[in-house]
Amino acid sequence: LNIALLAGDGIGPEVIDQAVKVSNAVAKKFNHEISWTAALTGAAAIDAVGEPYPDSTHEICMAADAVLFGAIGHPRFDNDPTAKVRPEQGLLKMRKALGLYANVRPTFTFPSLIDNSPLKRERIEGTDLIILRELTGGIYFGERGRSEDGNTAFDTCTYTKDEVVRLAKLGFEMAMTRSKKLCCVDKANVLETSRLWRQTVQAMEKDYPEVTVSYEFVDAVAMRLVQWPASYDVLITENLFGDILTDEASVISGSMGLMPSSSIGVHTSLFEPIHGSYPQAAGKDIANPLATVLSAAMMFEDAFGLKEEAELIREVVNKSLAEGIVTEDLAGKNKAYKTSEVGDWLA
Amino acid sequence: LNIALLAGDGIGPEVIDQAVKVSNAVAKKFNHEISWTAALTGAAAIDAVGEPYPDSTHEICMAADAVLFGAIGHPRFDNDPTAKVRPEQGLLKMRKALGLYANVRPTFTFPSLIDNSPLKRERIEGTDLIILRELTGGIYFGERGRSEDGNTAFDTCTYTKDEVVRLAKLGFEMAMTRSKKLCCVDKANVLETSRLWRQTVQAMEKDYPEVTVSYEFVDAVAMRLVQWPASYDVLITENLFGDILTDEASVISGSMGLMPSSSIGVHTSLFEPIHGSYPQAAGKDIANPLATVLSAAMMFEDAFGLKEEAELIREVVNKSLAEGIVTEDLAGKNKAYKTSEVGDWLA
Ligand SMILES: CC(C)[C@H](C(=O)O)[C@@H](O)C(=O)O
Ligand SMILES: CC(C)[C@H](C(=O)O)[C@@H](O)C(=O)O
Repeated sequence: LNIALLAGDGIGPEVIDQAVKVSNAVAKKFNHEISWTAALTGAAAIDAVGEPYPDSTHEICMAADAVLFGAIGHPRFDNDPTAKVRPEQGLLKMRKALGLYANVRPTFTFPSLIDNSPLKRERIEGTDLIILRELTGGIYFGERGRSEDGNTAFDTCTYTKDEVVRLAKLGFEMAMTRSKKLCCVDKANVLETSRLWRQTVQAMEKDYPEVTVSYEFVDAVAMRLVQWPASYDVLITENLFGDILTDEASVISGSMGLMPSSSIGVHTSLFEPIHGSYPQAAGKDIANPLATVLSAAMMFEDAFGLKEEAELIREVVNKSLAEGIVTEDLAGKNKAYKTSEVGDWLA
Repeated sequence: LNIALLAGDGIGPEVIDQAVKVSNAVAKKFNHEISWTAALTGAAAIDAVGEPYPDSTHEICMAADAVLFGAIGHPRFDNDPTAKVRPEQGLLKMRKALGLYANVRPTFTFPSLIDNSPLKRERIEGTDLIILRELTGGIYFGERGRSEDGNTAFDTCTYTKDEVVRLAKLGFEMAMTRSKKLCCVDKANVLETSRLWRQTVQAMEKDYPEVTVSYEFVDAVAMRLVQWPASYDVLITENLFGDILTDEASVISGSMGLMPSSSIGVHTSLFEPIHGSYPQAAGKDIANPLATVLSAAMMFEDAFGLKEEAELIREVVNKSLAEGIVTEDLAGKNKAYKTSEVGDWLA
């Protein structure tokens, strides 16, 4: 198993370390050999070589069967979104270069953590949804610029039918393995790109007669995600809407520190926790590594087809929650374990 | 007081009727004379004259000191966002024609309704925020289109510095009358228009030295609105982000049926409940009229400077809640009153 390891910034390296420990333990048990290749990204890469996604890192990712990613972002860039070189540019460059067209973001609940949710128990219980966010198109990658005097700015959102088909196909297929409900999220009452999305998905319905498709406007979904999250199953949407909705969805479960994600690509796939680089906690050995460990589980299952291995990781994570072998964010009044202690215990 | 009355579709006419009753009662008490001029809009206008915002309606609005608006939208348009004539087009045309550049959307809680919120009491308590949404620019009004073969679509988001200044000025002024906290919501790590927003607001900070300004990305705000809504005061943002965030904010209070809004314009101002046309309830005399009645209160205060009159309306609304003179959505196990009965009681 040939894995590129992009630890990134902040708590990235610490949580990645635990996922490596756990992955190695699983590999040993099942007689797999993992070859890890570390590469620079984010602010760490800017410091080292002047850019956030260097060619050397790209080559390592292209040669890998999967990429395990930590987090990127550093506070020194926060108040200057116009800085010439920024960690996020590396992220966008990487997504485009690796063709990571579909970001898969599950939101589910852990029974023992349900009271961490900002939502009432009866609202959040039973929530198990997946948002599929298109990740290499839309307004993120369209033309943008300024007028000569700098006083007028523009951004362009573009989509092609093929981009929509590629993402929607994944959505339909995922819905088939779940409850056969698919929700296409758009703003087709205003945007031309949204109308293209809706027409394209409508035309695909006949190929998946068992899937019930609904079409909802993004503003309505932003509401219903808070009101009745358990009513959703698989949602598909474009890049910017997906950015907003996946983050909104991530906090409703109360288990943000545990949510894994994957990005499915043309050249390889990438697996990462959904939380950020949490710079305040960096170097303190207190960050919760479970989202990264669960991202490694997703990697075993989705990138390598190793379902049993993935299940074993999920089982031991559940066990750590049940036995209270957790970091301070989950410990409540009980003993809080260090990041590395949780990793050791899991391994 | 010269008021244009645009009842619109669905429950629009019923809730508007109650706001008219209450406004007339207040006017009588304070010796004002109101001249109401009804005009067609929405699906009702499409049926009558073939377009959702006819010139005759525009003339009536232009001649008025304020517009009181019900709701628009009809289910027969729902599954066909590409229909040539749609109620929403009327809404967008009206916003542009009347120069309604700032949508003011408060989210606050009523102590007696706090348990209706999907959020836990301790999360929602104390929430009192206002989102100022830019309403006549951005991707809603930019160029859009298709390639010749129909397989590529695009939308353009454009902003000028003047548009940002106009909206931000309102935000700073509003913050000055409240807790002096302003949050500028953008996606400046990706979008050029967002960078223009951020730079423009940053340059205005020196004119309002007492206001503390924060800059947050839209995805982060979508999270924090659910986690810690009470931590916000005044938020300013562009059109599409505002569409999503105002709707998200509207459901967290648990009092969606009570939330008023205004749209501040160059030519006149418009006041409307934030809920939709709720077609399933149309004609049944069961819809909650309080959001529309509270929109009339906003109109008295903001359009006519009649603060005492506005306060009296708010007081009587609070009294109706306290005494349980409410429609079925708020009645719980108690007697539910009809829309018209609530209106009569308030008047
Ligand atoms: C950092 C930023 C460019 C990025 C995005 O908007 O895609 C982030 O918010 C995410 O969702 O991964
Ligand atoms: C109907 C639609 C065009 C409109 C918008 O997106 O502005 C609505 O969602 C709103 O927020 O008033």
